[in-house]
Amino acid sequence: MSMKRKKVSVIGGGFTGATTAFMLAQKELADVVLVDIPQMENPTKGKALDMLEAAPVQGFDANITGTSNYEDTKDSDVVVITAGIARKPGMSRDDLVQTNQKIMKSVTQEIVKYSPNCFIVVLTNPVDAMTYTVFQESGFPKNRVIGQSGVLDTARFRTFVAQELNLSVKDVTGFVLGGHGDDMVPLVRYSYAGGIPLETLIPKDRLNSIVERTRKGGGEIVNLLGNGSAYYAPAASLVEMVEAILKDQRRVLPSIAYLEGEYGYEGIYLGVPTVLGAGGIEKIIELDLTSDEKAALDQSAESVKKVMEVLA
Amino acid sequence: MSMKRKKVSVIGGGFTGATTAFMLAQKELADVVLVDIPQMENPTKGKALDMLEAAPVQGFDANITGTSNYEDTKDSDVVVITAGIARKPGMSRDDLVQTNQKIMKSVTQEIVKYSPNCFIVVLTNPVDAMTYTVFQESGFPKNRVIGQSGVLDTARFRTFVAQELNLSVKDVTGFVLGGHGDDMVPLVRYSYAGGIPLETLIPKDRLNSIVERTRKGGGEIVNLLGNGSAYYAPAASLVEMVEAILKDQRRVLPSIAYLEGEYGYEGIYLGVPTVLGAGGIEKIIELDLTSDEKAALDQSAESVKKVMEVLA
Amino acid sequence: MSMKRKKVSVIGGGFTGATTAFMLAQKELADVVLVDIPQMENPTKGKALDMLEAAPVQGFDANITGTSNYEDTKDSDVVVITAGIARKPGMSRDDLVQTNQKIMKSVTQEIVKYSPNCFIVVLTNPVDAMTYTVFQESGFPKNRVIGQSGVLDTARFRTFVAQELNLSVKDVTGFVLGGHGDDMVPLVRYSYAGGIPLETLIPKDRLNSIVERTRKGGGEIVNLLGNGSAYYAPAASLVEMVEAILKDQRRVLPSIAYLEGEYGYEGIYLGVPTVLGAGGIEKIIELDLTSDEKAALDQSAESVKKVMEVLA
Amino acid sequence: MSMKRKKVSVIGGGFTGATTAFMLAQKELADVVLVDIPQMENPTKGKALDMLEAAPVQGFDANITGTSNYEDTKDSDVVVITAGIARKPGMSRDDLVQTNQKIMKSVTQEIVKYSPNCFIVVLTNPVDAMTYTVFQESGFPKNRVIGQSGVLDTARFRTFVAQELNLSVKDVTGFVLGGHGDDMVPLVRYSYAGGIPLETLIPKDRLNSIVERTRKGGGEIVNLLGNGSAYYAPAASLVEMVEAILKDQRRVLPSIAYLEGEYGYEGIYLGVPTVLGAGGIEKIIELDLTSDEKAALDQSAESVKKVMEVLA
Repeated sequence: MSMKRKKVSVIGGGFTGATTAFMLAQKELADVVLVDIPQMENPTKGKALDMLEAAPVQGFDANITGTSNYEDTKDSDVVVITAGIARKPGMSRDDLVQTNQKIMKSVTQEIVKYSPNCFIVVLTNPVDAMTYTVFQESGFPKNRVIGQSGVLDTARFRTFVAQELNLSVKDVTGFVLGGHGDDMVPLVRYSYAGGIPLETLIPKDRLNSIVERTRKGGGEIVNLLGNGSAYYAPAASLVEMVEAILKDQRRVLPSIAYLEGEYGYEGIYLGVPTVLGAGGIEKIIELDLTSDEKAALDQSAESVKKVMEVLA
Repeated sequence: MSMKRKKVSVIGGGFTGATTAFMLAQKELADVVLVDIPQMENPTKGKALDMLEAAPVQGFDANITGTSNYEDTKDSDVVVITAGIARKPGMSRDDLVQTNQKIMKSVTQEIVKYSPNCFIVVLTNPVDAMTYTVFQESGFPKNRVIGQSGVLDTARFRTFVAQELNLSVKDVTGFVLGGHGDDMVPLVRYSYAGGIPLETLIPKDRLNSIVERTRKGGGEIVNLLGNGSAYYAPAASLVEMVEAILKDQRRVLPSIAYLEGEYGYEGIYLGVPTVLGAGGIEKIIELDLTSDEKAALDQSAESVKKVMEVLA
Repeated sequence: MSMKRKKVSVIGGGFTGATTAFMLAQKELADVVLVDIPQMENPTKGKALDMLEAAPVQGFDANITGTSNYEDTKDSDVVVITAGIARKPGMSRDDLVQTNQKIMKSVTQEIVKYSPNCFIVVLTNPVDAMTYTVFQESGFPKNRVIGQSGVLDTARFRTFVAQELNLSVKDVTGFVLGGHGDDMVPLVRYSYAGGIPLETLIPKDRLNSIVERTRKGGGEIVNLLGNGSAYYAPAASLVEMVEAILKDQRRVLPSIAYLEGEYGYEGIYLGVPTVLGAGGIEKIIELDLTSDEKAALDQSAESVKKVMEVLA
Repeated sequence: MSMKRKKVSVIGGGFTGATTAFMLAQKELADVVLVDIPQMENPTKGKALDMLEAAPVQGFDANITGTSNYEDTKDSDVVVITAGIARKPGMSRDDLVQTNQKIMKSVTQEIVKYSPNCFIVVLTNPVDAMTYTVFQESGFPKNRVIGQSGVLDTARFRTFVAQELNLSVKDVTGFVLGGHGDDMVPLVRYSYAGGIPLETLIPKDRLNSIVERTRKGGGEIVNLLGNGSAYYAPAASLVEMVEAILKDQRRVLPSIAYLEGEYGYEGIYLGVPTVLGAGGIEKIIELDLTSDEKAALDQSAESVKKVMEVLA
C-alpha cells in the first residue's frame, strides 16, 4: 500500500528531453530525473531548477532533478530516451546509426543497472533501429521496450487537417503504420473529422498534399528553425505514451513495437497500432490491409531492416 | 455577444517568449501571436508550428502564429514584451539600458498602432525602467502597463522554502516589494507555510540564506546554464498575470506598477502588491512598513531612479 | 477590449441544472446563474452557495448565483434550459408535451427579455419538440437555438464500447443521428476504437446489444435509481456544447438543429452532425446515408413530427 | 513496479459520497467503489453508471462501481466514510451519536477485513467522535485514520472573505483549529488575502460576522435547502485530503487527528494543522496559542470529550 510517487527518468537534457520532463511534472505524473552527460551536468541542473521554480505558480507538486549520475535514476518506473546526436551535414547515415547505437547501448546498460523493472520509451533516431538496440541490450521483454513515432506523425497530420477544415483538433484523428517520416504509411481511410472519413471531406489532391507534408513534418520544422529540430510536439507525444503506462489507461496508440509474426514480419521493430497500459505494450492490433497498404508497409519494413544491417 | 477568442501577442520569440506562448495556448486562454524581428521570422514560425503540432495530443484549441509582421498582432487583448538583449560581458549597464530602451520604444509604437486598447505586460530587464519606457511611449493609462518581477521572485522563494520544509509548493507563500533580484525587498513576515509564518518554522539564518538565494535566483540559473537564462519560471509568471487579466480573476499579485504617491513615491514604476483583473492593475495595496522595510524599499526606489536617469 | 467574464444562465435548478452549473464554474468558463421557480428559490440559493464554497478548494474563480428572478440572467452569453417535468406514471405523452411546452414558452420569454443576443441550449424532453418550441417562441435565428441529445447518446455508447473492449474512453468514438433514445439512429460504421471501425472489433450481435443498451440508456439509469433520472452525463454533455460555443472551438458534435432541407427534411428540429463554435451551429454536416440508415432517420423524423402535432 | 491504478472506496452513496466519487474519478486519482447498504444497491449502481457515462465527454479514465458488497472494496488504498444518519427533528444528540457509532463500527469492520493497510478519512458527524470510533475499531495506527472538518470550514471562510473583498479565492487563506462548526476555533491572525493579514483588510466587526457565518456555515446550507445538507464543498474537501495522500503531496491541511500530548490533550481526536502525505498524517504542527485561543481550544476539546462519553 505504498503511496510513493511514480518516478520517470528522461535521458538526454536537450530541448526534447527537458520539455518532456517539464510536461510530466506539470501533470503531476511522477517525480522526474533529467539525465545528461557529465559535461552537461550544470546546464541540466539549471534547467531542472528553472522548471521547479515554475511549480509554485503552476501549482504542481513533483520533484525535478538534473544530473549526470545514473544512480539518481534508481527504481524508475519509466525511462524515456531522447539522447543521441542529430545527423550533421556531411555525415553518412551509417555514421549516424552507429554513433547513436553506441549511445543507446551505453545508456541502456545504465538504465538496466538501476531500474531493472522499468519500461523504456525511445525517441532517438533512427527510432526503429534504436528501439531494437535498446531491446537487445536491455534483455527486457518486448512489452517493456517501446519506440515513439506514430503519435507524433498523427499529431502533425491532425494539425494540418484541422487547419484545412477549420475544425477543433479534438475531433480530428489520424492513423499511421510503419516507420517515421518518409517511411510512414498513412491509413487515410482510418482518419476522421468528427467520425466522418476524411476522404469524404477533403479532395484527394489536398489530402495527398497533407500526407506529404506530414511525411516531411520533421524536416519542415528543421528548415524553419535553421538550427535544431522540433521538440514541443515530440515531447507531448512521449508524455502521452508515458501517461498511458503510468495510469494504466489502455490507450490505443501507434507504437514502435517488436513484431514476432504480426503483419507478417519477424524480429523487427515497426510502427503498429497498440494498446498501451500498465503492462506497456499490452497488445498489438492487427488490421486487414489493402494490397497497396501492405506494399507500402513492406517497403517501410525493408527500410528498417536496411538500417538494422548497419548496426554493429 | 461576441464569442471571438481572446488574442495575446508575445513580442520576442526567444525561449521565454516561446514558452509563454505555449503555456497560454495549452490553457486555451487565447490565440497567440509570437513576434520576432524579420531575421528571426522563420525560426519563430518553426516554433509556432511545432507548438501547434502538440495541440492534438494535449487537446487544446488555440491558434499559435509566428511572424515578424506586427499587423498580425492587430486587436490583441494583451501584449507581452519579452524582447530585448541580455547584458553581455564587457557591456556597461548604461549600454544595456539604452539598447533595450530603443527596443521598447520601437516595439511599443507597433503595439499601440495595432492594438490601441490592449494591456501590456513587460518582462524585459531592467524591468522597472523598461515598463516606464513602455508606459511613456504608449501613452496608455497606467493600469494598462504592467511589469513582471514579483511573481517570479516569490515563485523562487516559495520553491526554496518548500524544499527546506519538505512541503507542498501549494501551501507556501512569499511576499516581495521593490525591484527585481538584488533590489528585491522580501517581506518575510508576510510569508507562510500553510498560513503559519515562516519565521516560526525556519531558523533565522536559514531563512536569510533562502532570501539571499532568491535575490540571486536569476544569476543561479544563468551560472548553471552557462549560456542563456531562465525561461520556464519567468514564462509561468507572465502567464499567471495575463490569465488574471483575461479571466478577470482579481488576483492579489505583486506587479511593477506606476506609483503616484503610493508608498511615498511619485512617477516611478516599482514592485508593489496589486489586484489584477479585467482592468489590469485595478488597485495598488498599501501596507504599513517597518522602518527597516521602508528603508530597503527607499533603496530599491533609488536604484530604479538611477536606471531611469540613463534613459534617453 | 472588454475582459468581462462570460455569463451562462442555467434554467432549472434540479440535479442536471445544478451539476451543469457546477461543471461550468469548475472549468472557469463563465459566471453562472442558476434559476428556478420562486418556490424553489431558497434551495437553489443553497445549492449555489454550496458550490461556491467548493471554489477555494478546487481553485476556480467563477461566481455562482441561485435565483428565481430572471433579471439576474441579464446579458447572458448562453442560456441552458433544463427546466420541465418528467413523465409521471399515468401521464399521457401528450400531457407531458403540453406541460413542458408551456414551461418552454414562459421560460423563453424571460430569456429573450433579458438576453436578446444569447445562445440557447435545450435539454428538456421531448427535446426535439421542446427545442422547436423555444426556437419559435424566441424568434432567434436557428443557429442560436440548439438541442442536446447526441452528445449524451454517444457518451453512453462510448462507455459501453470501452467496457466491452477494455480500452480508454479517450479512444472510442460513436456517431448518432435522429432523435433521442428510442428514436436514435446509430451510425455504427462511423464509430471507432483508436480509429478502427468497431464493426471489425466487436461481433455483430454484441454490437447490436450495445446499440440497444444505448437506446435504453436513460431508462436504465431511471430503473436503477428508482426515483429520478440521470444527471452527471447529461450535465457533462451540455457543458461540452456550451464550451464549444464560448471558446469558439468549432467542435464536430451532434446537435438537435433546425433543418431547412438538410437530409431532405423541412421545418423540424432533428439530431444531425454539426459544427459548434462562436456562431452556435455554424454548419450542418450532411452525410450520404445507406437506404437502411435513411429509412431509420425518416422514422425518427416522423416521431418528431408526431410530437410536434401535439404542440399547442 | 506495478502500474496498477490506485483504488478508493467511498462508503455512503448519498450526495456527498457520490460527489466525492465523481470528483476522484474526474481527476483520474483512482478507480472508485461507491458502497451503500443492500437496499440502496440499485440506486448506487445507477449513480455510478451515470458518472461513468460522463467519462468519455470529460475525458477521464477511471472506473466507478456501485455496490453493497464490501468484497468489492478489497485492497483499497484509501477509504472515505460518509455513511451515517443526519440528526432528525426530535432526535437527541445522544441518539445520533450512538446510531452513527454503530454504523461506524460495522463499516470499519468491513473496511479492515478487505483493506487492512488502507488509510481511512471520516466525514460522518459528529466527526471527532466518529473518527475516534473508527480509530478504535480498526486498530489502525493513528496516522492512517483521519477526520475531515477544517478543510471545509476554511473553504467556507475563504469564500466569504473573497466575496467581502472581491478578490480571487485563490489568494485568500483561512486557518481553524478544534471541532467542526460551532466548536471551530478560527485563527484569524493566520488568515490572509494575498499574504496580507485579514485583520488589516477587514474591519473587526465584519470579520467577526464572517467568522460567525462560517461557524454556522453548515446550518446556512441546511436552512436554504430545506431538505438535506451541503455536499459540493464537503466532497471537494474530502478529495483534497485524499489527493494529498495518494500523490504524497505533503500538503499543510487541517485534519482531525489523534492527539497524544500535542496541544496538551491526550487520547482525543481534534482538529489541528497537519502534514498530509504518503503516510497519511505525517506530522501534527504545534503552534503557540494566545490565552484566548487556548481557552477556546480547551472548550472545543471539552465538547469533543462530552460527545465521547456518549459512545458505547
